[in-house]
Formats: sequence, structure tokens, C-alpha cells
Amino acid sequence: MKLNIALLAGDGIGPEVIDQAVKVSNAVAKKFNHEIIWTSGITGAAAIDEVGEPYPDATHEICMAADAVLFGAIGHPRYDNDPKATVRPEQGLLKMRQKLGLFANVRPTFTFPSLIDNSPLKRERIEGTDLIILRELTGGIYFGERGRKDDGNTAFDTCTYTRAEVQRLAKLGFEMAMTRSKRLCCVDKANVLETSRLWRETVQDMEKDFPEVTVSYEFVDAVAMRLVQWPNSYDVLITENLFGDILTDEASVISGSMGLMPSASIGIHTSLFEPIHGSYPQAAGKDIANPLATVLSAAMMFEDAFGLKEEAELIRSVVNKSLAEGIVTEDLSGKNKAYKTSEVGDWLANNI
Amino acid sequence: MKLNIALLAGDGIGPEVIDQAVKVSNAVAKKFNHEIIWTSGITGAAAIDEVGEPYPDATHEICMAADAVLFGAIGHPRYDNDPKATVRPEQGLLKMRQKLGLFANVRPTFTFPSLIDNSPLKRERIEGTDLIILRELTGGIYFGERGRKDDGNTAFDTCTYTRAEVQRLAKLGFEMAMTRSKRLCCVDKANVLETSRLWRETVQDMEKDFPEVTVSYEFVDAVAMRLVQWPNSYDVLITENLFGDILTDEASVISGSMGLMPSASIGIHTSLFEPIHGSYPQAAGKDIANPLATVLSAAMMFEDAFGLKEEAELIRSVVNKSLAEGIVTEDLSGKNKAYKTSEVGDWLANNI
Ligand SMILES: CC(C)[C@H](C(=O)O)[C@@H](O)C(=O)O
Ligand SMILES: CC(C)[C@H](C(=O)O)[C@@H](O)C(=O)O
Repeated sequence: MKLNIALLAGDGIGPEVIDQAVKVSNAVAKKFNHEIIWTSGITGAAAIDEVGEPYPDATHEICMAADAVLFGAIGHPRYDNDPKATVRPEQGLLKMRQKLGLFANVRPTFTFPSLIDNSPLKRERIEGTDLIILRELTGGIYFGERGRKDDGNTAFDTCTYTRAEVQRLAKLGFEMAMTRSKRLCCVDKANVLETSRLWRETVQDMEKDFPEVTVSYEFVDAVAMRLVQWPNSYDVLITENLFGDILTDEASVISGSMGLMPSASIGIHTSLFEPIHGSYPQAAGKDIANPLATVLSAAMMFEDAFGLKEEAELIRSVVNKSLAEGIVTEDLSGKNKAYKTSEVGDWLANNI
Repeated sequence: MKLNIALLAGDGIGPEVIDQAVKVSNAVAKKFNHEIIWTSGITGAAAIDEVGEPYPDATHEICMAADAVLFGAIGHPRYDNDPKATVRPEQGLLKMRQKLGLFANVRPTFTFPSLIDNSPLKRERIEGTDLIILRELTGGIYFGERGRKDDGNTAFDTCTYTRAEVQRLAKLGFEMAMTRSKRLCCVDKANVLETSRLWRETVQDMEKDFPEVTVSYEFVDAVAMRLVQWPNSYDVLITENLFGDILTDEASVISGSMGLMPSASIGIHTSLFEPIHGSYPQAAGKDIANPLATVLSAAMMFEDAFGLKEEAELIRSVVNKSLAEGIVTEDLSGKNKAYKTSEVGDWLANNI
């Protein structure tokens, strides 16, 4: 099979971890007789530096022509504390999401038995956690009208949702629940927000189409609590963009395996796969970042974008082997030897 | 001293826990020779049932005439899953906040050494946690324009902030930081939202007036993570209304002492004191709810609304004594005898 993959390394540790995912993917391709055509594009602060724009048209063309996008991370501290900066790396991320129509961000949170003691939560709280948050990614307050009035002394942001946007996301959620334990939780703030009431009403209307799925409705503040208290009580959660931003990040730290969590963004034009850990600028260029989340994102890509399940499973099993044998970067090595990012990548590729 | 206090018991377990706070407050007043004049008002579902409106004008008059408001909880499950209900108990809460100008919600999260093992977090993560989240309470998306368009198929909510609103809240935050460890964290989403950029810019401008305070700026998604990972790294956090809703609830469960956490809402016309635990309808009428958060809210009221620090300290010390001696409700009793809500209240009042 011929796999056309756009490769966006991005900022910070992005290039380093992407390199390892490429090594592993190439090894898998070789083994299964696939041909991968990688086409690289620039994004983020790196792209601002080169062409003054964080998601250049040339990069967009590359993504549109690809069957899938493998993505590193975007973001640079240079821009973080400057509220007046007019071009920000994150704008690239948002533009990319919008132009590629990446409407659903799929964020699994699960545990690795060998890493469970890294969790800030007590073992009995986190054990057995296996949940997915489906975050709407191209609507809501991220993309509504915003601005200033009154000589800059008043600011506003608008959150908007259409019924069709909610249906599109919720349908994925129902379908995903059907392949799992058939429980779906709709997270909103329907006691305050009109958009949340539209969400709740729309999901309620869809219940009849999925009679086997048990749906619960919870307020975002209550979910923020229960994710810490009893994360293993959740299965599939669906929510709007901003709530999803907060809750997926909260969920990511409870497993103790943040450096290992992959994600997918399902789109109209293509799908994108990326580690959730971000650009982690403090570690950039040091060859110490954990590449496993990116490698597992590549596994998700093989399975979800190309239907290559066996290939994906092979990657996952090699990752598990590296964990079992302690071939890990310093974030996971404890008192044992810490391997470099590139060493872990080489080991994985060799073991494919 | 004459203390004019409005008493709003509200819904669910509200009336039961409020009763205990009244007993304890009366005992304190007797001991210190104060006269408390309690004036009760109806709110929430209880008020909807009686007069069709969750924050009736009569109740508002009572609050306006009082020096402080002691509040139970609002909310009833009857309204939760009905997106089309036109009168909701929570509207009463929002109307009350707005009409009383309760612009700052003060939410401490601290630990009780004897309860630390109730925390879902590991001991080393939670130990030493003592933080305060200052949540803006009368602005933002809670009070912006909202509605439907397009035959009800599009919904919108608007988030608005003015510089003056941010300054008012941030000033409290800086002042509070000055009385503590002089660290202030401004929580926003300035990489996306214009209102957040106004927040960040305004707080940055205020830094020069409080040169001793070290200010950090963090994104709400990052804070949602760090609150679970290293809550003891925070001191005072300031944030806008919706972020505050989510983060204060998340923070409330990490201590393992949610049933004990008091809160204050500082207002233009008066101040309001309430437990953070909500109306907890499942327990209503059973005389099993933990009254300590409400009793500790009364302590906050003595100190913050009336400057009666000694009285507040006495209440706190009696609460600590009840914990040490195991005079606690079933949520805290473990394998030991569980006391009724009213028994705990009686014990506290007798020990004043
Ligand atoms: C960088 C930022 C704009 C982005 C978001 O808020 O969506 C990030 O936090 C994420 O979750 O991918
Ligand atoms: C009931 C609801 C409107 C309210 C809020 O969101 O402010 C509650 O969650 C709170 O935090 O007091």
C-alpha cells in the first residue's frame, strides 16, 4: 500500500519526537511492504521565523494532498507572555484545524500497568481507567467573533454552535460508545449557557437512534471533579471545544502516562495524529524528550487513517516491550539508565 | 455588637446544614455578648415552588438590609435534564450574584491533617496545599448576551469583560497575595481569547503597584493539570467566571475535605458566605449531610464581614476538636460511629 503522509514537526521537541515516529513507521512499512511518501511542511514558530506565518499555504497544500498528517507540536514561550503579539504560533494550529476541517479531537486516557505509580492519584482511583474524550475542535468560542470596544477597555469573545456541528460530533461519540461499553457522557454547562442547552437538546434527540447507548448529562464543573475522583467510571465523553481543552488536559495527567498519550483529529479533508504533550520548549534540542506518544500516534494513524490494524498493533507491542525492558527516556527511567530520545527510536525501529 | 444576617437556606441539604451553622453562631454570639438578628429568605427551587421565582424581590430586600448573608445551597435535579425549562433554580443564584454585586468568589482549598488520606491524590502530592482561587463572579459568559438564531438551530453566548472588572478582581488578588506568600497566578486562555488578553494585559499593568508580588501567567488548561499534579505549588490564583467555576470545583476535590470547604463572595452591597458542596439532593432530609463547611463559612463571616477574628478562631478550633474526637457525619466517620447532621451541630454549639 502507498501511504501519503504529511509530516509537520513544528516547534520545541516536535522535530525530535517526530524523527522517532518516522523511523518506526518506516520500519513497519518495510516489514509489511508498504511505501510511505513523507512530505514535510513547516508550522508554528518555526514557520513564523521562516515565512512570517504559522500555517503557510504551502503547508496547507501538503496536508490537503496527503492521506494523513503526522504532527509534532506547536508553541514557543517567546509568544506566551506578550498579549500584544499579532502573529502567534497557536494561530497556526487553529487555522490548520479550521482549514482541514478537523472537527473531532479524539483523546484517549488509559493506563500502563508498569507506569501506574507515576500517577498523582492513588492506585485504587486510577486503576482500570480507559476513557476517551471527544472534543469538538472547529467551533465554539475558539472561532467566534471577538474583539475590543470602548477604546480597548472592553473585550468580547463569542461562542457559537449549530445543531449540525453538535450532531456531527455526537454521532462519532455514539458510534465510539457502541464499540466500547456503550456509555456516553455529554459534558456541558446547560444550567447557564445557551450553546450548552443546544448541545444537550441535540444529544437528547439523537438518543433514539442509538437505543443501546446509555447517555448521561453532566456539568463541566462536576466532570472536572469526577475525573480526579473516579476517572475509571467514565467511558466516552463528548464536549465542546473549550471544555474539551480543559478536560482533556486534566485527564492527561491523571494516568501518570502523559508522555505516552496519542491523539487523533478527525477531519473532513484528512485526519491528523499527534502526541498530546505539546512543544515542551525546556527540553527542546536536548534529545531527552519521550517519543512514545508520537510513536503511538503513528500507530493510531496506521489503524484509523489506513485501516492497517496489524501494523498498529505491532507498534504498540514494541512500545510495551520497550517499557517492560526499561528502554525509556529520563521521565520514565527512575533510578535506572535513561536513554536518549533517538536511542529509544532506534531501539523501537530495530525491534519492529 | 449587633449582627444583621440574612439567612438563605435554599434547596436540598441547605436547610439542614444551615441549621447547624445557626446553632453554632448563636452559641458564639451568646459567649461574646453579640446580638444576632437572623432574617430568613427563600431562594432556589424552594422559592420557585412558593412564588414562581428563584430569587424573589422580598429575598433581595432582606439581603440588602443585612450586613452579611449566610447561604446554604441551590439546585434541584428536577431541572437539570430539562433544557427547555424556563425558570431554573440556578437563575436565582446568578440573579442574586448580580443584584448584590458579588463580584469576587473566594475559594480556599486547604487540607486537614486528619483527613489527608481521603484525598484521591497521593499524600506527597497534596500535603501542604493551601491555595485560594479568586473567581470573578458577575461577569464573563455568565452574564453576556445569549440566544438562538436560525429557527433555534444556532445558539450563541457572549463573554465580555471590561478593564475595570478585571482590575477590581485582580486588586483583591494582589492584596490577598500580600498577606500570604506573595505569589499570584493569573489564569487565562490568552493564546485564544480576546477577553483573556485583556485580563493578562490589565494584570501586567498592575504589577508595578504591587512590586513585592511575583505574578505568573498560566493557561487554564495547564492549571487544570498542575492542580492535580502539584497543588501545593500554588498560592493565590485569579481567574474569570467560567474558568473559575471549573477550577474551583476541581480544586475542591483534591484536598479530600470537600465537605469542609467554606467560601465567601465579596460584594458591593454585602458579602455572602456559603459551603461549596452544593445542594446534594440525594442526601436531603436524611440528617446525614456534613455541616462543617457551612459552620466554617459562618466562621469566615464572623471574621471577614464583622472583623470578629476571635469568634472565628473559636469556631475553627471547635471544628478541629470535633474532627479529632470523631464527632463527624458518615462521609468522614469511616469504620467508626457516624453522627447525624444535627448531632454534630449540637456538639459544636455545646463546645463553644
Ligand atoms: C495552543 C492552544 C491554542 C490549543 C488549544 O487550546 O486548543 C492547545 O491547548 C490544545 O489543546 O491543542
Ligand atoms: C449552579 C451554577 C450556575 C453555579 C455556577 O456555575 O456558577 C455553580 O456551579 C457554582 O459554581 O456556584
